[in-house]
Amino acid sequence: MIVDTLPRLHRMSAHVWKPLTVLFVWDVAVTVTYYTLPFHAPPLPLTLFGSALALFLGFRDTSAYQRWWEGRVLWGAMINASRSLSRAVVSFLPDEDEEARQTKRTIVRRQIAYVHALRRQLRRQDVEADVRRHVGEAEVVEVLKRTNVANGLLEHNGRQIEVARRRGWIDSIQQATLERVLIDIANAQGGMERLKNTPLPNQYRLFPALFTRLFCVLLPIGLVESLGYATPIGSTLAGLMFLAILQIGDDLVDPFSNTVHDVPLSAMCRTIEIDLLQSIGDEAPEALKPVRGVLW
Amino acid sequence: MIVDTLPRLHRMSAHVWKPLTVLFVWDVAVTVTYYTLPFHAPPLPLTLFGSALALFLGFRDTSAYQRWWEGRVLWGAMINASRSLSRAVVSFLPDEDEEARQTKRTIVRRQIAYVHALRRQLRRQDVEADVRRHVGEAEVVEVLKRTNVANGLLEHNGRQIEVARRRGWIDSIQQATLERVLIDIANAQGGMERLKNTPLPNQYRLFPALFTRLFCVLLPIGLVESLGYATPIGSTLAGLMFLAILQIGDDLVDPFSNTVHDVPLSAMCRTIEIDLLQSIGDEAPEALKPVRGVLW
Amino acid sequence: MIVDTLPRLHRMSAHVWKPLTVLFVWDVAVTVTYYTLPFHAPPLPLTLFGSALALFLGFRDTSAYQRWWEGRVLWGAMINASRSLSRAVVSFLPDEDEEARQTKRTIVRRQIAYVHALRRQLRRQDVEADVRRHVGEAEVVEVLKRTNVANGLLEHNGRQIEVARRRGWIDSIQQATLERVLIDIANAQGGMERLKNTPLPNQYRLFPALFTRLFCVLLPIGLVESLGYATPIGSTLAGLMFLAILQIGDDLVDPFSNTVHDVPLSAMCRTIEIDLLQSIGDEAPEALKPVRGVLW
Amino acid sequence: MIVDTLPRLHRMSAHVWKPLTVLFVWDVAVTVTYYTLPFHAPPLPLTLFGSALALFLGFRDTSAYQRWWEGRVLWGAMINASRSLSRAVVSFLPDEDEEARQTKRTIVRRQIAYVHALRRQLRRQDVEADVRRHVGEAEVVEVLKRTNVANGLLEHNGRQIEVARRRGWIDSIQQATLERVLIDIANAQGGMERLKNTPLPNQYRLFPALFTRLFCVLLPIGLVESLGYATPIGSTLAGLMFLAILQIGDDLVDPFSNTVHDVPLSAMCRTIEIDLLQSIGDEAPEALKPVRGVLW
Amino acid sequence: MIVDTLPRLHRMSAHVWKPLTVLFVWDVAVTVTYYTLPFHAPPLPLTLFGSALALFLGFRDTSAYQRWWEGRVLWGAMINASRSLSRAVVSFLPDEDEEARQTKRTIVRRQIAYVHALRRQLRRQDVEADVRRHVGEAEVVEVLKRTNVANGLLEHNGRQIEVARRRGWIDSIQQATLERVLIDIANAQGGMERLKNTPLPNQYRLFPALFTRLFCVLLPIGLVESLGYATPIGSTLAGLMFLAILQIGDDLVDPFSNTVHDVPLSAMCRTIEIDLLQSIGDEAPEALKPVRGVLW
Repeated sequence: MIVDTLPRLHRMSAHVWKPLTVLFVWDVAVTVTYYTLPFHAPPLPLTLFGSALALFLGFRDTSAYQRWWEGRVLWGAMINASRSLSRAVVSFLPDEDEEARQTKRTIVRRQIAYVHALRRQLRRQDVEADVRRHVGEAEVVEVLKRTNVANGLLEHNGRQIEVARRRGWIDSIQQATLERVLIDIANAQGGMERLKNTPLPNQYRLFPALFTRLFCVLLPIGLVESLGYATPIGSTLAGLMFLAILQIGDDLVDPFSNTVHDVPLSAMCRTIEIDLLQSIGDEAPEALKPVRGVLW
Repeated sequence: MIVDTLPRLHRMSAHVWKPLTVLFVWDVAVTVTYYTLPFHAPPLPLTLFGSALALFLGFRDTSAYQRWWEGRVLWGAMINASRSLSRAVVSFLPDEDEEARQTKRTIVRRQIAYVHALRRQLRRQDVEADVRRHVGEAEVVEVLKRTNVANGLLEHNGRQIEVARRRGWIDSIQQATLERVLIDIANAQGGMERLKNTPLPNQYRLFPALFTRLFCVLLPIGLVESLGYATPIGSTLAGLMFLAILQIGDDLVDPFSNTVHDVPLSAMCRTIEIDLLQSIGDEAPEALKPVRGVLW
Repeated sequence: MIVDTLPRLHRMSAHVWKPLTVLFVWDVAVTVTYYTLPFHAPPLPLTLFGSALALFLGFRDTSAYQRWWEGRVLWGAMINASRSLSRAVVSFLPDEDEEARQTKRTIVRRQIAYVHALRRQLRRQDVEADVRRHVGEAEVVEVLKRTNVANGLLEHNGRQIEVARRRGWIDSIQQATLERVLIDIANAQGGMERLKNTPLPNQYRLFPALFTRLFCVLLPIGLVESLGYATPIGSTLAGLMFLAILQIGDDLVDPFSNTVHDVPLSAMCRTIEIDLLQSIGDEAPEALKPVRGVLW
Repeated sequence: MIVDTLPRLHRMSAHVWKPLTVLFVWDVAVTVTYYTLPFHAPPLPLTLFGSALALFLGFRDTSAYQRWWEGRVLWGAMINASRSLSRAVVSFLPDEDEEARQTKRTIVRRQIAYVHALRRQLRRQDVEADVRRHVGEAEVVEVLKRTNVANGLLEHNGRQIEVARRRGWIDSIQQATLERVLIDIANAQGGMERLKNTPLPNQYRLFPALFTRLFCVLLPIGLVESLGYATPIGSTLAGLMFLAILQIGDDLVDPFSNTVHDVPLSAMCRTIEIDLLQSIGDEAPEALKPVRGVLW
Repeated sequence: MIVDTLPRLHRMSAHVWKPLTVLFVWDVAVTVTYYTLPFHAPPLPLTLFGSALALFLGFRDTSAYQRWWEGRVLWGAMINASRSLSRAVVSFLPDEDEEARQTKRTIVRRQIAYVHALRRQLRRQDVEADVRRHVGEAEVVEVLKRTNVANGLLEHNGRQIEVARRRGWIDSIQQATLERVLIDIANAQGGMERLKNTPLPNQYRLFPALFTRLFCVLLPIGLVESLGYATPIGSTLAGLMFLAILQIGDDLVDPFSNTVHDVPLSAMCRTIEIDLLQSIGDEAPEALKPVRGVLW
């Protein structure tokens, strides 16, 4: 996620430079042709094209932003649920019993491992290293056999809470409270996997891209008759605006894709790690800082 | 659900070819007539038509997409609830008692049978085979008598959980937790049946289809006076854009219709099957792969 | 709810015929006047009118559809909650005690009576017959005294569940689960009554109807100068599109009004009846079928 | 809330008369000036103005309607929660104990007092009379000291439920069910206070009002060149449509303001009163009727 | 939050004066140049630019307002949850035990400290003073070590509730009710932090600002040919409208930024303080009043 308040010129220009050049060269070419060859440019129904295109692009950008924002909301829910799980486990389990104290730490650290594993699954990265940092070796071997490693870790926490109940550290009402938090966590995870595994319908990926480019090709032809020598400027600018709208959709549509436009999963996992470690009294790392204006 | 990132030309052209040809032939015919007969084409109020049409199409596509996405969200909720049911059942029931261990397996496998039965009900397919794979013969006979087979399976799980409580394997608070998961499952099922049984209001199915085609017919007549020989190109392109917008609505409006634009029910049922079988320690099948770019 | 996939010509034409004729006659009259009298038609700012009208109509149709869909969602929630109530009651109450078995049946059948009573209240019909079919005579007399009969039935179920708890058939945790389902039912009922008792604000009923008709009157006057003899066709078509958009809003705005555009309450009550009767092992009637393409 | 299906002419004209006259006089003045003085009216970019204005007005009306509807939804939730509270209290508390029977009545009547107090707080009216009708004198004195009287009544109900638990009339699980209903009530109240205390952002109140009026002033100037003598009609009509859109926003934006466009709080409080009194077997008043087409 | 019903001229003019002057000077300069130099202004496709810009601005303002309103809703939820926590704690804990009475006060006052700390964290201010007013010295030292001070306070309340359970003042079902309120509080806090830490995507901050200004620059050039001497008026007005739409987005996008357009956090924290202090019978301060038309 880009957090700079001012744009970094080199980044913006990197994105803008190419389409700008292509558009401008084409617009100049059309204009030159118009004045060279004795042809009569037809007054293409640009307003009609434009309004059909606006239907596509308006819808697409709204959907893309909603996906991006839902991704963020779901990770926010994960932060909340992780805190609630940790708060309840630390409160409920007795401090007097050494084994109970150990169980607190295991559950909380396994939750940290869980969010890291989930983040890496969503970004299609290897989960092993992050799990190993917070979970015992035997468990690592076991959960890595699962198709969905994060889900395996969550089940282990469910089972350990049941063990705590059998040991008499908590009663079944407290277990019900914890179980409800686990359900919230499972729901957040399921929502994230839904966003990851279900792209925007194919038609909304192809048609807007196709029609926007076609529109940019036709723009100078439709404008040159009335704009004359000003065609390259007017046409390039209008084309650039439509291309920018198209690009935004592409940037936001997949919020867990590990690009600069991503929801900052690493930073949020770190937030969870800090809050959870501090709640069991452990040393916590620093919050992640933006790297050249980008929070990952 | 189409998962190709690039379009498959043969599929796209299959959809595009026919309307493209029809539009183009008509546009050429109008243009030729215009230059042949000495008639004066009226400057039809295309902008007025276009903006009324945009009201219809914008609304229709938004509603269609919302239906499609809600279908996906509900199946996501089903995945989450299935995992939560399995996680809680496996945690809560004791491992020491052989019969309790058997009950765990029965409940979890019946949930797998349930999602398969629900998928097949929604697609109006025969449910028997999929239910038989996971549920005992006597029960198969019984549930197939029900009008709503999936609902019958859910009730059986509810009853078996009550039996587990009477046997003392779980207490009534743990039952309440499980019961709440069953309620989530029932709500997701009800939502899917709502989408399946309630099409978009009739008016939004007929009028947009009618008016879009009428608009395509009138387009070249309204444009030929100003576009001249460029009419077939300008008119076909504009017509194609509106037809594409119309088509998207048709593709997405029924998310459980077993077409390539469908929500991938089979793949999601398989996901549930894998996660649930692994959670009771059974061998799980592979995840479903896209077949020629389509995930079913 | 109209479930035909193809329009029934006679029904469509019934709706379309009258406005079509009126519009066409007026458009012809204006055109004839234009060519007869030597008057100069002013180029009315139709685009300005049209965009103000689009603000009204777009908003109105969206709101109307949302009301219609919310009506359907609430009845879907009622189906889900009815099934959950029945499933839980049948599971929780013991089968060994004859009186408990009887109580199961009473609660489930009273829920069936409840949905029928609610449907008839919403459609402003007499509730007595439907209640009598499922509920004992003494109770019928009592609930019919209530201003809100459905609410009275719901309270009776709440009381009978408490009796079941006092008899020791269920414990208070199971009661809490059932009570939560009753709350869901009460919330769905309240939502339906909200839709029924709160029409769209008065301004959105009057102004769009007024301005759309005014717009249709002005259309041929504004178009005749440029369209000439083609005015009746262009103007009638544009007018028809706007009238169609207006009509859709009227059709959908009151989803419980017992018209062909209604949410199919009778069919959904029947669905509940079937599922609930089958869950207590009773004979169930057939699902309702569409009558000449309309599901009631 | 206006419930007339047909407009009352005198009410409509009262609203429409003044702006209509002002607009018409101005439009005529501009037209007369145009034909009197030899000045050339500039073709103002009315489409540009109009589309910027549409952005403002479309947004404002949508927000205003959402506020109005949310106000209605929250009161609907209050009706539901009041019924659920009453149903559960009447079911749970034993009928055998005279004191318990008295407690039922006190709690239910205090809930009636609560909704009346809340209604009057929202409308910035004196709450005392309505509270006194349903609550004992000592309590009246105490709650009137509170800044938020309704909240005080709700706390009293919470405390009395705890007393019922200590007396052994209900157990703590039943208390939890009741407490959850109290939380729903508190949430509904909080939502209503949010709507009341947070107006639409200042910019959305001022700019649309300013720009719409400016637009009406410029309309005839921009149209007179092309419309000529028809200017007063075309311009007044277009201006009236935009003013109507502006007015709707004003009418709906504050749903608890005690005007004819209000959400009908009094009628809904009466509905609650009827349902709750009948549920404890008391005599209930009649439902409120519309007064000259307006339900208050 | 600005609560004046009428604009304060000096505040409005402060915002409007600068862009108005800049726009007007530029528009006059273009007009003068046009009449001085014999150049031919191209009829720039302002409608195309305008509709692309409308896509950006419409989306941006809607998103900004949704963020602002969500910020308000979340603080409303915090008020509700604080009241529910206080109501339940005061009801549940016994009055007979001095220590229990003290615990009530500690929990309620810690909740007050919590909302103040959260407000200051969101506004990036120092939290110490506000925490110290309501919480014991030892605890102040401890929570200030936490990265997230508010979260630390919430955990302390969770732990103290568990202590109350161990002391036998409440049972674990009442604890579950309180714990659920704590989860609501944690969810509201998480939502606020999400709004604070996740700005609108970078593209929606830069492109609209850039394109709107570019549009204002091009406006007089595109209009001067047809408007002539009226250009400065027409162009300045249209430009001002688009700049106003742009500005609203900036004002509302960050609802916790401590500006005049802010959600009034201080006033809402004071509301919580009053309600909670009164519920434990303490002296409460006055509600905050607007300062020169602004509620902070």
